[in-house]
Amino acid sequence: MKSAIEELESKAKAAKAASRRMAYLPTEVKNKALNYIADDLLAKKNEVLSANEIDYKEAQDSGMSAAMLDRLLLTAERLQSMAQDVLAVAALPDPVGEVFEMRTLPNSLLIGKKRVPLGVIGAIYESRPNVTIDISSLCLKSGNAIILRGGKESIHSNSALAKVVQEAATKAGVPDGAVQFIENTDRALVNHMLKMGAYIDLVVPRGGAGLIRFVKENATMPVVAGGIGVCHTYVDKSADIAKAVAIAFNAKVQRPTVCNALDSLLVHAEIAEAYLPRIAAELSQAGVEMHCDERAFSILKPLSPLKLVPAMEEDWGKEFLSLVIAIKVVPSLDEALKHIERYGSGHSEAIVTEDYAAAMRFLNEVDAACVYVNASTRFTDGGQFGLGAEVGISTQKMHARGPLGLRELTSYKWLIFGSGQVRP
Amino acid sequence: MKSAIEELESKAKAAKAASRRMAYLPTEVKNKALNYIADDLLAKKNEVLSANEIDYKEAQDSGMSAAMLDRLLLTAERLQSMAQDVLAVAALPDPVGEVFEMRTLPNSLLIGKKRVPLGVIGAIYESRPNVTIDISSLCLKSGNAIILRGGKESIHSNSALAKVVQEAATKAGVPDGAVQFIENTDRALVNHMLKMGAYIDLVVPRGGAGLIRFVKENATMPVVAGGIGVCHTYVDKSADIAKAVAIAFNAKVQRPTVCNALDSLLVHAEIAEAYLPRIAAELSQAGVEMHCDERAFSILKPLSPLKLVPAMEEDWGKEFLSLVIAIKVVPSLDEALKHIERYGSGHSEAIVTEDYAAAMRFLNEVDAACVYVNASTRFTDGGQFGLGAEVGISTQKMHARGPLGLRELTSYKWLIFGSGQVRP
Repeated sequence: MKSAIEELESKAKAAKAASRRMAYLPTEVKNKALNYIADDLLAKKNEVLSANEIDYKEAQDSGMSAAMLDRLLLTAERLQSMAQDVLAVAALPDPVGEVFEMRTLPNSLLIGKKRVPLGVIGAIYESRPNVTIDISSLCLKSGNAIILRGGKESIHSNSALAKVVQEAATKAGVPDGAVQFIENTDRALVNHMLKMGAYIDLVVPRGGAGLIRFVKENATMPVVAGGIGVCHTYVDKSADIAKAVAIAFNAKVQRPTVCNALDSLLVHAEIAEAYLPRIAAELSQAGVEMHCDERAFSILKPLSPLKLVPAMEEDWGKEFLSLVIAIKVVPSLDEALKHIERYGSGHSEAIVTEDYAAAMRFLNEVDAACVYVNASTRFTDGGQFGLGAEVGISTQKMHARGPLGLRELTSYKWLIFGSGQVRP
Repeated sequence: MKSAIEELESKAKAAKAASRRMAYLPTEVKNKALNYIADDLLAKKNEVLSANEIDYKEAQDSGMSAAMLDRLLLTAERLQSMAQDVLAVAALPDPVGEVFEMRTLPNSLLIGKKRVPLGVIGAIYESRPNVTIDISSLCLKSGNAIILRGGKESIHSNSALAKVVQEAATKAGVPDGAVQFIENTDRALVNHMLKMGAYIDLVVPRGGAGLIRFVKENATMPVVAGGIGVCHTYVDKSADIAKAVAIAFNAKVQRPTVCNALDSLLVHAEIAEAYLPRIAAELSQAGVEMHCDERAFSILKPLSPLKLVPAMEEDWGKEFLSLVIAIKVVPSLDEALKHIERYGSGHSEAIVTEDYAAAMRFLNEVDAACVYVNASTRFTDGGQFGLGAEVGISTQKMHARGPLGLRELTSYKWLIFGSGQVRP
């Protein structure tokens, strides 16, 4: 373990040193590196797929579930698609170097902010090997050095992919040391990594809730962890019922396993009898199980066969990540707002209404990263919001909130151009 | 202690509840509150000064130093000046409510960001009672609720001032609970406060290095702590000597006790013999003690009487906060950059040069909140930078860097105006 820690420290120091030079690396060098990565993913297909085969066999032998095995598997087609994603990042504008809020002060100092990379990003991730390429390309494009620490299930695949990235970066002229890969998969090493605030500026955990919690609780540097979204859609008494059906159905069913999917549907009492049977019929056809409060249950009960379950207290504020929805009838917008305040996770919340004042109150009063009127919460996504690639979705208020694109992997510094000014 | 913790929790909950309504409080209500505070600081002068007298006497009896006693002391004149500062904050533009990056997506979703308060700010501070007013006015203006926890030396003064703030806020229509004051000065309570991430969105420690370190190491929520600045000025071989003398002198002498004051002067070898005697003569007249490396020492030694001391390793990277300076002769710009990279604290760094390429390299390569060409580092200040009031100076890269004004006490939320859109 001692030598593993020493190796980690020397890699972290090398990344920090490289990051100083990454800060002013020309965009064309960064783009060249990304283009080489895309090329080499295909050119070195055989090495990568053989490495993946080792991981896959070991995982199979250890009894990994079919779903997890599928996440682990790389194929020629998947490499092709990863290469496409890298090229898409190359095509995005470089966030670094932008100068903004530049102005001349009364004492003639010319002063403004220049966008710079954060420095060194530590990525701690599980299982899916494509994260190696995904995070590397985002970090390279935003001028950040990176320390990759993947899980042990995909160690051979990650190692082969990291080698692709490192070789492509070197070939393009990216400073040596900018891409570090940790071979040792001992969990204790992660703990050590989380204490290296002197070298790592930001940690991005990618994986299950357990990993994210562990990183948040133990990291001494800033952490950007998205992932948890308890999302509500409130159907106001003045909602257009067809829109409300389409929006709630889309938010719940279009991709139920992700953080911006609908969890709790709140329905105004005055529209509940007209609305609930219609949305329930649609949800039912899609196989959705409905956990209903007493009022919703009594409205829907006569319409069986539906998958109805009486809601329990723990259904409110629960992220289902599956074809399950909680449904509650509320007497007023005020009660909907209170419910969201109490149970929401600050991710994405929507109102469906044709009432202007209700829409504006909802936008003003709901405290969440993304607040919607008459649209599906499934739009909360860097790509959908026009940010290009997405690092994650932040439900924190500091630094950045909502989808995190390349720009959110940067900071700024103040530049001050003087001509001999001193402070009076 | 148990009841003190319960009281703290109930105050934190009340602040959190108030913060929801603070988010959309009209600017005119916030300004009215600030105006009332300014009025009441004068109208309730007698109560405040009597409370301060109790603190002052106790501090005197306990043998507090004259400098600390002076920081503790309130007078009619000081209250007048505090009132002026509050009015200055009232006159600043409201950062909250600004809508930016608003645009229409191809699917006709209208989407953008709206600036919102962070929520609840916890202020942990020592000794100087004016911080109670200072932080309160900044938080009120930026729509944040606040939990004030001052030190025990100024408990009576802080309590009286907090009462002024609370009464003024209530009178103006600020939601009840927005300004909380913790009477209990037990240190253990601070520790508890630092674990209340569920209610407190940001902690701002104001005080000595010990307090700041304690807060940083123990807080589970984000912390904005400025305060530490190891600032360098590098005099390039092509510097204008008169400018370089004026800039270094100003940076060291104009106010030596603050974080943006000059600590280490780096001088290119080719200009050292011409420059060092001139700056040393000026510094000497101001009573500055010079900790010189071997080369600087040998140049200055013949010119005594100067306060010359051979520099030790610990002089590099030291924040002197007094009339002491470290001086080093470097063979090149490269060595100056390396020295700053190794010893700088990422606060404010300056180059004095007439060489364009040297200036641009310095701006590009130095990784600090504020990078200067031909100006004194003493300008690093919210007021000087045109931000109005200043909460502190951040040397972190996340969220905000450099002087923190009102806008840096805010976050944003995404607003999405739809007309029935669902994700394909």
